[in-house]
Amino acid sequence: MGYTVPPLENLIDKFESLPSIGRKSAQRIAFYILNMDIEQVRDFTKTMLDAKEQIHYCSVCQTLTDGERCSICANPNRDPKVICVVESAQDVMAFERTKEYNGTYHVLHGLISPIDGITPDQLKIKELLFRVTNDDVQEVIMATNPTVEGEATAMYISKLLKPFEIKVTRLAYGIPVGGSLEYADEVTLMRALEGRSEIK
Amino acid sequence: MGYTVPPLENLIDKFESLPSIGRKSAQRIAFYILNMDIEQVRDFTKTMLDAKEQIHYCSVCQTLTDGERCSICANPNRDPKVICVVESAQDVMAFERTKEYNGTYHVLHGLISPIDGITPDQLKIKELLFRVTNDDVQEVIMATNPTVEGEATAMYISKLLKPFEIKVTRLAYGIPVGGSLEYADEVTLMRALEGRSEIK
Repeated sequence: MGYTVPPLENLIDKFESLPSIGRKSAQRIAFYILNMDIEQVRDFTKTMLDAKEQIHYCSVCQTLTDGERCSICANPNRDPKVICVVESAQDVMAFERTKEYNGTYHVLHGLISPIDGITPDQLKIKELLFRVTNDDVQEVIMATNPTVEGEATAMYISKLLKPFEIKVTRLAYGIPVGGSLEYADEVTLMRALEGRSEIK
Repeated sequence: MGYTVPPLENLIDKFESLPSIGRKSAQRIAFYILNMDIEQVRDFTKTMLDAKEQIHYCSVCQTLTDGERCSICANPNRDPKVICVVESAQDVMAFERTKEYNGTYHVLHGLISPIDGITPDQLKIKELLFRVTNDDVQEVIMATNPTVEGEATAMYISKLLKPFEIKVTRLAYGIPVGGSLEYADEVTLMRALEGRSEIK
């Protein structure tokens, strides 16, 4: 019989269950938490519960927000006529980091994936069609990941949008900036060739 | 003005403040938590608070425990006459993983470090002297880390133990098992030479 401290083991197990945390890191974190003041631990747990309780989907674009509408949809300087369709709120954050895009978003919260049992009706596609039907939308940018599921979802939604006669675009494929041609796969290279543009 | 969700940012900040979690991992974990059921989040926070509230120091060896004495001190099969002095409860776990050591421990909860303002009276040295004075201790193994602070602490305690006329030992220095001579530093190599043993 070795050294066992059940509440400590429970704590380590919980942290190990989180993504990107292994056993050793979970142990280090558990001991770090035991060294915190009880007030700091209470503050930490309150932050977790607050986030979980206060964050929900934006009534327009379905991204995460603590208000009725997210800070992008509520911003009068953003162009609601352009909608960038993404898989998750993380993708919204990635686009926002570019500080270049001035339109709005629509978060699907997943991709069509028959193998995982995810069908179109489980995604926020109805909400997108509602926006396209009721607002004066001019362009929908399909910005799902360039994977089989991402492509399939983009194609599915494009077809649904056909009757509305609005511009539907897809993100450019090509060599990543700073990437090396040597290590690019054939499909990416082929797409980069297809999408080549004239140097003016 | 970009995309801001204050409760989400608070959550990411909290996880980023933990050891071995960077910004990207903290984001991934925050989204993972938002996807958990509220019951699972409550269970997670309860585990954190339970651990913090229930875990304290063993009345004998000062390691972490949720009982009055730890599972090692309470085990009649462990030899209380041999005490292995370590810096932290993590070190106890490391020794226990060897499944070879059958004595008890004493956790100092730190090392003497004038530069960080840690003086001997902040460590659990009194408690060690109490055990040596009152119990029939035969050997004290100094198992602090082989750093300047670890060495200084081991020397300091050894001197305090001199009057008791008990055996005081130090962990062996040498090449780590599976390590490479090529990459061993000179001090380690020198100690490995000094501590060489005869092949019988």
